[in-house]
Amino acid sequence: MSIKSAVEKLGFTLPPPPPPAADYLVTRHGASGYFISGQLPKVEGGGLLATGKVGGTVDLDTARACARQCVLNALSAMDAEWGDRFEDSFKRVLKLSVFVSSTPDFTDQHLVADGASALIHEVLGSAGRHARAAVGCVSLPLDAPVEVEMIVEFVERADHG
Amino acid sequence: MSIKSAVEKLGFTLPPPPPPAADYLVTRHGASGYFISGQLPKVEGGGLLATGKVGGTVDLDTARACARQCVLNALSAMDAEWGDRFEDSFKRVLKLSVFVSSTPDFTDQHLVADGASALIHEVLGSAGRHARAAVGCVSLPLDAPVEVEMIVEFVERADHG
Amino acid sequence: MSIKSAVEKLGFTLPPPPPPAADYLVTRHGASGYFISGQLPKVEGGGLLATGKVGGTVDLDTARACARQCVLNALSAMDAEWGDRFEDSFKRVLKLSVFVSSTPDFTDQHLVADGASALIHEVLGSAGRHARAAVGCVSLPLDAPVEVEMIVEFVERADHG
Repeated sequence: MSIKSAVEKLGFTLPPPPPPAADYLVTRHGASGYFISGQLPKVEGGGLLATGKVGGTVDLDTARACARQCVLNALSAMDAEWGDRFEDSFKRVLKLSVFVSSTPDFTDQHLVADGASALIHEVLGSAGRHARAAVGCVSLPLDAPVEVEMIVEFVERADHG
Repeated sequence: MSIKSAVEKLGFTLPPPPPPAADYLVTRHGASGYFISGQLPKVEGGGLLATGKVGGTVDLDTARACARQCVLNALSAMDAEWGDRFEDSFKRVLKLSVFVSSTPDFTDQHLVADGASALIHEVLGSAGRHARAAVGCVSLPLDAPVEVEMIVEFVERADHG
Repeated sequence: MSIKSAVEKLGFTLPPPPPPAADYLVTRHGASGYFISGQLPKVEGGGLLATGKVGGTVDLDTARACARQCVLNALSAMDAEWGDRFEDSFKRVLKLSVFVSSTPDFTDQHLVADGASALIHEVLGSAGRHARAAVGCVSLPLDAPVEVEMIVEFVERADHG
């Protein structure tokens, strides 16, 4: 089963894979793991699901939806790269960093991050469980409310040079 | 020697291991390292050693004590998982991320982080030395003044599936 | 070719290697990668290229110059450690974390980070390309506008004990 079908089975839609970014890579695979760049809650068409700060104009439910959208973008990047080889190669998710654009008095970053963690768990099963850090940022690129970064492990240690 | 006895020899008490969190793991072990989720300065009973922002209601000494408490929680998580196998399996600490909930004008995050780094060094010796990043966050979960995340390396590459 | 000569060919000067810090290491090499501690935009003599917050007293051009200076310090640390062995041992850059000290309304952290990413790409070629996260911090150590952390991979898995 591909990531795409697993995501759709849960009623979510995989956004188009994040476009190759300026002078960095959306994903980088080395012997030490598979790194997925910090994903914003981009939706099809290129905009963001929401903008602003959690605790300010962005409420907790919207923030959790943004966290899920970040994860969907990360999954889409993996799907674009691994496709049918995914099931045989994927080993486990190692770590999530969840950055939440927050007002100074918002202290529920962990509840925002739960949106990301639960979706990964649902899509990838127990191999999707992971260590995590959730912190509050004064601001994020494009005024995104959430940014999610992932480290994943694959069996295949392809040497991409 | 277990972590517990090393910690107690220094006059510190290991808190109970951090409870399994919502939908993520306190620790995640893969071929690429052993990741410990961002730890807060929890104390026995479940509360935090302090809350608030460093540079505001939390002074530097309290912040350093919080950083040490975060480390004690990380060590307790390792102790719960490795127990007697620790001495034979532990290789080295690789990296610490120290997130300090800060007022905009507090710029001594590195001095807060020194509390964490020094304790790890004391408990684990030179193998406990590590690379590090220390940054200021606008806020942290549960209004914690400090959150510490660790990447550790073990000889035994147990495949936890 | 050493890092030093590659940097100088581009018209940049490698600062002196960052001094061994308090109780942590500037670099830490393990089987799971080579971790470079968060670098500040230090210049020869020990001061910073600039201080303050991006979006406040620090403009975008200065912030990008700071991001490049952080990278030069990271490259200098690598050069000091690997010297002539660099060319044979260096495999690839895996990930950059770019922390930007920001006012709450500054949302171009990715443009600041591009300064870091582009320089690494120029110096190290395609092997220097990397995954990345760029986030806004409420403040950074020594009032630095930017801090950059790197994870690199080397062929040689020297066991530094």
